[in-house]
Amino acid sequence: MKILAMDSSGLTASVAIVEDDIAIAEYSVNYKKTHSQTLVPMLDEISKMTELDLSTVNAIAISKGPGSFTGLRIGSATAKGLGLALNLPIVEVFTTDALAYNMYGCADLVCPIMDARREQVYTGIYEFVKNGDSYKMNTIMNASALSIDELTDKLVAMDRNVMFLGDGVPVFADRIKEKMAGKISFAPAHMNRQSAASVGTLGIEYFKEGRSISADEHVPEYLRLSQAERERNEKISG
Amino acid sequence: MKILAMDSSGLTASVAIVEDDIAIAEYSVNYKKTHSQTLVPMLDEISKMTELDLSTVNAIAISKGPGSFTGLRIGSATAKGLGLALNLPIVEVFTTDALAYNMYGCADLVCPIMDARREQVYTGIYEFVKNGDSYKMNTIMNASALSIDELTDKLVAMDRNVMFLGDGVPVFADRIKEKMAGKISFAPAHMNRQSAASVGTLGIEYFKEGRSISADEHVPEYLRLSQAERERNEKISG
Repeated sequence: MKILAMDSSGLTASVAIVEDDIAIAEYSVNYKKTHSQTLVPMLDEISKMTELDLSTVNAIAISKGPGSFTGLRIGSATAKGLGLALNLPIVEVFTTDALAYNMYGCADLVCPIMDARREQVYTGIYEFVKNGDSYKMNTIMNASALSIDELTDKLVAMDRNVMFLGDGVPVFADRIKEKMAGKISFAPAHMNRQSAASVGTLGIEYFKEGRSISADEHVPEYLRLSQAERERNEKISG
Repeated sequence: MKILAMDSSGLTASVAIVEDDIAIAEYSVNYKKTHSQTLVPMLDEISKMTELDLSTVNAIAISKGPGSFTGLRIGSATAKGLGLALNLPIVEVFTTDALAYNMYGCADLVCPIMDARREQVYTGIYEFVKNGDSYKMNTIMNASALSIDELTDKLVAMDRNVMFLGDGVPVFADRIKEKMAGKISFAPAHMNRQSAASVGTLGIEYFKEGRSISADEHVPEYLRLSQAERERNEKISG
């Protein structure tokens, strides 16, 4: 099967076409442009380069969140638009799950952290367990919004080596080292940010398990209230 | 530092810009077009998308081989041309080393296999060892051309779990399973082919260690004679 995948949950804009066991194309950019300028042109670019016949695509996989509100909304709108126009189902993948899947087969606990501002991270905790002739990714802690201190406390209690990745690393690396030196690693440049191919690879698995929805049903997963909503609530309650 | 990286050693065409700890852009395609049609347009695309100022690039990293003769020649010619035109040094990375680096932090031995025809694979054997707050990739067997049976015999003798990746997997997976079932895994779609970001990430490490050469000095590493050379030698000796 063939899946079109997108991730615009953070600064990274990433698009991919994944067919069964191979990524036909992946294009990822970590640059200050907004996703409204990059995502659709990037999709267009890889579709043309691989002479993609859109009628052969089975589904659209989208990194549903958590992440940047604006980024998630642009990704969701694009996925919904394509899904409606092409009459394709949507497969939603948690951003943290897809990030962790970058580290398939990793010996350590895998902990993606995305900077959520206000001393918080969007995060999750995962492990890869050998299962016959492949690995299974177990979710130890689902996608969550936590303070960096809550997270490191949890990880210290688990007493295992931890591999960190995501845009929270440059923000919080020093505090992580202070608390956990000797038990940590940070994923290198080629695998430490969102990858649409990872979203698409998980998307194919989910699709085969029947976990797809209609474009209408898809909504991003923000986990927290937006700044605007928070301020409105504070006004109301205050 | 900033490095421009390329891999055209197999069917995959991949280009990337890596800056210190982050891949600014990566674009990879697994499609039947020849690299002479894809590599330079893809470089042009990511340079424009990220508004790359070529004068800020410090070096060019190239996947030097082993791999497809034609693919390696196109990659080398492109790297040499850019290196000469921009007066930049070249950093050579073995294709098998860069492929193995896709699996940074992997619990198993990592064994990239590229189909070399005539029952052979281009391969190498690697392991990741925890080293302070990061992983070191050890080379257990350097880039080599071996028959698939020689390789699996070697691996069986090592008696460890092995993670396979590369375009040799679809060709030889059944024979690997026959000999090694229960001790093997195959890397999933998002990380099982050449990645220029991986070449660039290793390239930055090598550059810092002083392992760069001039564009003049760079030559691809074929490991074996080309079919034309083999046939000529057979004629001469016959």
